[in-house]
Formats: sequence, structure tokens, C-alpha cells
Amino acid sequence: MKEFDIKPLDRSMQTAIQDKIDNLNKPKGSLGRLEELALQICMIQHTLEPSLAHPCHLLLGGDHGIEREGVSVSPREVTWQQMLNFTRGGGGVNMFCRQHGFKLRIVDVGVDYSLCPNPSPVGEGNIVGEGNIVFLDRKIARGTKNFLYEPAMTEEEYDRAILTGSDLVDDCIAEGCRVLSIGEMGIANTSPSSIWMHLFCNIPLKECIGAGAGLDNEGIRHKYEVLSRAIANCQLSTANCQPDEIIRYFGGFEMVAAIGAMLRAAEKHLIILVDGFIMTACALAASRLCPAVREYMILTHCGDESGHKRMLDAMGAKPLLHLGLRLGEGTGALCAFPIIDSAVRMVNEMNNFKNAKITKYF
Amino acid sequence: MKEFDIKPLDRSMQTAIQDKIDNLNKPKGSLGRLEELALQICMIQHTLEPSLAHPCHLLLGGDHGIEREGVSVSPREVTWQQMLNFTRGGGGVNMFCRQHGFKLRIVDVGVDYSLCPNPSPVGEGNIVGEGNIVFLDRKIARGTKNFLYEPAMTEEEYDRAILTGSDLVDDCIAEGCRVLSIGEMGIANTSPSSIWMHLFCNIPLKECIGAGAGLDNEGIRHKYEVLSRAIANCQLSTANCQPDEIIRYFGGFEMVAAIGAMLRAAEKHLIILVDGFIMTACALAASRLCPAVREYMILTHCGDESGHKRMLDAMGAKPLLHLGLRLGEGTGALCAFPIIDSAVRMVNEMNNFKNAKITKYF
Repeated sequence: MKEFDIKPLDRSMQTAIQDKIDNLNKPKGSLGRLEELALQICMIQHTLEPSLAHPCHLLLGGDHGIEREGVSVSPREVTWQQMLNFTRGGGGVNMFCRQHGFKLRIVDVGVDYSLCPNPSPVGEGNIVGEGNIVFLDRKIARGTKNFLYEPAMTEEEYDRAILTGSDLVDDCIAEGCRVLSIGEMGIANTSPSSIWMHLFCNIPLKECIGAGAGLDNEGIRHKYEVLSRAIANCQLSTANCQPDEIIRYFGGFEMVAAIGAMLRAAEKHLIILVDGFIMTACALAASRLCPAVREYMILTHCGDESGHKRMLDAMGAKPLLHLGLRLGEGTGALCAFPIIDSAVRMVNEMNNFKNAKITKYF
Repeated sequence: MKEFDIKPLDRSMQTAIQDKIDNLNKPKGSLGRLEELALQICMIQHTLEPSLAHPCHLLLGGDHGIEREGVSVSPREVTWQQMLNFTRGGGGVNMFCRQHGFKLRIVDVGVDYSLCPNPSPVGEGNIVGEGNIVFLDRKIARGTKNFLYEPAMTEEEYDRAILTGSDLVDDCIAEGCRVLSIGEMGIANTSPSSIWMHLFCNIPLKECIGAGAGLDNEGIRHKYEVLSRAIANCQLSTANCQPDEIIRYFGGFEMVAAIGAMLRAAEKHLIILVDGFIMTACALAASRLCPAVREYMILTHCGDESGHKRMLDAMGAKPLLHLGLRLGEGTGALCAFPIIDSAVRMVNEMNNFKNAKITKYF
């Protein structure tokens, strides 16, 4: 796998940053979480004048072999149908990207459908839909293998998926991007997420499985049985193997690409916005490969599922929003962006007590 | 007092609105709180195509006689200093208004300082600072009377304050405004807020008093004693008087103007964004004058103080954000605006399953 050289946050400017925040004309600490965010962002960027220039959203799509076991209420065709819908601007993710000025890269990393034949309905590398949307064909295979019986991907595929995510981030950086959010579309991808959570956090599998996108109790029971068997079959555990083996055995191409993107983004001092159960699982996995990546992440949203909350707790995260979102696509991260923008504007735009000629108050 | 004819929400379109939301291409309910907001907003505006055109923010300033009793850590001069600072664009409220495209009306309703002498540093009715800021001189008096000994304002002043808030909303509506947020600047205005909460919610006074902007334990004890004596002196209670008497006896001009603004906004089917301890107290008071006003409000933020949470609970509100903000100025309401905007965009911009040619999923 590609090596990433991710530095722990440089804290040499921490005092100077905190002083600047404390002298803005407001009672100390009165902008709450915004002040904490501002400190983190300034440290990531090593500056007193942070920037969120050229925000980019990666929407990574892929299909999953495990879907064949009936672990999801939705059929796999929904993956490609939604990917196509996103290129036309009609998805939830499109609305949020337009609202907050994100450039959207819709990337086929492993969808089980030819989104980009010749002639193509979308066109590799072309601007599609309305406005700031690009479709990219980075397909590694038409879906992963079924991890009930065999690893989801080969070592070569795993390396390619990591590199694909990393290269996508380099494209964003070349455009001036300083803040990255990542979303996913992949029917059945809560299954690998639950297994990663179970193995990486040592939380009983049952507590890692939720209703996903609408499973009933019978569906949840079936999903639990399938995933239990898969874990028993694979004979991997955190005790006897490296994190990358666990990631490769169960992961989707879109998930491994997300991990590659997170690692590269941290290496290049980007701010990484993480939301949702699946992206939190990817963030967790990335932090097992390279713990320092965690400091570059903002965990943006906690859904209603207890499993998501437990995973966030295990990562020591206090998510910004609790809005009951469970759409995926990175919509929670996008929804939180204006709050992060407010934190940056606070540092850059608010007057300080001295300039404002105000009696310093508390 | 001016009469307001506030209608309960017209629910005749509720089924049609819910159907539209449920058929957008996402699993049903998967945009969580956004879907609830969308329903409320569509009902307020009685439409399937809601609009947040011309958002306006009223920043109402006034001083309080009770400040003379040492109930606040900050001296009253901070009120006018901050009001002046806002006209120069350097406050927290300015940053949020710029970020979210709000027109900001900074209104002196009762500041104890001549912000608008002749020649004026700010200029009545003029555009001041940078961009979309207007300063308005609507001063009723230079601060309220000290309610430890007498009513904060006369009946005539109360009526004028209500009307002032109402007229400000009419100015906003004339510009096409469909969504209003309100903030305040008034040193010591947590004191009347605590008393209103105590009297209107029947919650022990002690539990209605928090640290405000930085009081220590001794300061809180002193504030409790002062407010207890004031309540004993006034001989008003919810059992023996009308809500407007309680509001008038303790309220600040900026607070009563906020109530007038809320009532008029609801009468004219505007969406009202409410945040913070003081604005929540005003919303509570407004709903005691006219219960239907509550349906037009979105409670945007719950701070860390337990009193605020209890007041929100008493109003049956589930606030959108929990970001530990305690700056006032309406910053919590402004901070929540993009989420409300997302709810409206969801209804107006997302494709439905039929158009998107997607297998309906759950």
C-alpha cells in the first residue's frame, strides 16, 4: 500500500491562535463549539488566517458482493440508478453541494453497471448535470466479491482503491481545495461498516448492526447471522492480523477509496469532513492504519442509530449535528459545512476588543 | 396594545405536503429534522414551493434599570459600545448576517446613550457599515426603570414597544421578507428573562437563573436575592394578572419590541427563528399573549445552561442545534439558517422517484 506521512498537529501556534480567539469582541468562549473548531482548523492549516477555499465533495460509488445474501432491503441496481441520478443533479447530495458551493466529483470506483460505455451517458472526466459536477470512471471491478466466502478484494485491488482515493484528493488540491468531504453510494455497505466497527472497537457484533435503510427485525436477525458466519469463515481478528487485512477482506471499493482519500488529505493538511455510519467506519479504519489522521477530521453528524453513536464515542468524537439524517451520500458533512465556515469567519472577520473600543467583558 | 390576528396553522395541505416530501428520491424520513422543518415551513406559507426570500435580522438594543443592582458582570456601557460596533460590521452578528445573506437592522429601542445625535455617528435610517446594514433610531427611553422598585415601563411605553417591533416587521415584509430572525443587545436582560420563565412556567426562580455572561456563585446568589425581592415587591403572579402586566413590569424595550415583532411576523405568515435564553423568554411571553404564535417559530439553538433547556422543554421545543453558543445577538438563529435553507431546497430541488427513474427504496 502507498505510504502516507501524516504528521500529528503542530501545536507550536496553539497559544497564539487561542489568544486571537479569546480577544475577539465576545465574552470568552461564548461562541462555544465554533471556537473549538476554529482552533482545530487553524492548527491543521498552521495559520491565524484559516481558509476553506475550493471545498470539494467526493461521492464514491461501489457495489458489494455481500448484497447477494439479502442483507439490504434495497437491490443493488439502486447504486447505479442513484449514481446516474446524481450526475443529473437530482439527488440530496446535489442540493447540498449547490447550496454550499462544493465542487462534486461523482466517482465510479466499483459500480456493477457500465455507467461510462462508449458512447457514454455521462462521459469520463466531463462536466455533467448542471454546474459544478464532474463524473469520473475509476472502476476497479464491477462490485466486490462476496466476503461470506472470500476476501472482498485482492491485494492489488486494495492498493488500487487506496491510490484512487489519494489521487482524487491530489486533483482537488491542484484546484486549491482546503476542505474535503466524502460521501458514498453503495447498497449493502452498512455490512462491512458493522464488521469493521465490531473488529476495530471490540464491540459485540449485535450492537454494531442497526436497521440500515429500513430493515425489519427479521431482516436484522438475518443480517446478523450472515455477518457472524462471514467473520467466522474469514478467521481474521484484530488480535491476529493487521488493520489493512480486515479492511481489505470486508471493505467496498468506495470505502477503501475513501480511506485513501482521508489519508492523503491529512498528509496534505486538508480539513476532512466525516459523517454517517459508513464514513465514520471508514474514518475509524483510516485511524487504525494511521492514528494521526484523526486530528484532521471533523465528525459532523450523529444519526439516530445507537451503533453510530457508540462508534463516535469510541473515536472520542463530539459530532456537531444531531439531525436524524440517514441518507448517506455525505449529506451530513455538507449540512454541517456552514457551521465550520462560521468558525473560520469568526477568526477572520470578527473585530477584537482593542479595535472595537469596547470594555472587555466576560 | 395592538391586536394581532394570528391564525393556527392551516393543515388542509398537510397531506399533499407530506406526500411530496415522501416521494423525493431518498429513503422515507432519511433527511430527519429537515423533513419536519420542511413540513412546518410549507404549512406556514401554505404552499408546496416554500421560499426564504429576503431574510431579515432585527438586532434590538436596550438598557435595563435593574442593571443598577449589580446583577450583571458587564457594565451598561457595553450595550451602546456593542451597538456602535455592530454598525461598523465588527460583531458576531455581522459575520453571520454576511455569511447567510441577511439584511441587518440595528435598532435602538431603549439604549442609554445617544447613538444618533446631530451630527450623527451612525445616522437614522441610513445604510451604515459595510453592505446590508441599516441603523434605526426607535428609542422609547434611555433604558427602563428599575423593576426592583417600580414597573420597568409605563403602559404607553409598552404599547409603543410592541408597535415598534410590529412596524419593523412591516418594513421587512415590504422588502419581500419571508423569514425573520431576532437578536438582542441589552446588558442585564437575562434578569427579566429569568423572571418571565419563573412566572410563566411556574419553575422555581433559582432554577431559572444561570451564570449569564460570566457570574460567579456569589454573583448568582446576589442576582437571586435581587430578583426575589423584585418579585415580592411587584405583587404580580400568573394567578392574579394578565401576561401583558408581567411582561410590562419586568421587560426591556428590546424584549417587548421582539415580542411585537414575533406577533406581527406570525400574523403575516413569516417564519420566525428564535435562539438563546433571552429570545426564548420573549417567544414564551409572546405565546402567553397569543398561543398560536408558537407554530410559526423555529427554536434554533439550545445553550449549555440548564435553565434554557428547561424553558425549551416547557415550550415543547426540540432545538435544532446544540453548539454551546451564548453570545446573544441572535447568532444561534443565524447559525441555524442554512439548515432551514436546506429543508426548503430539499422540497424545491430534489428529484422525485418517478422523474429520477429509480427503484423506490426505503
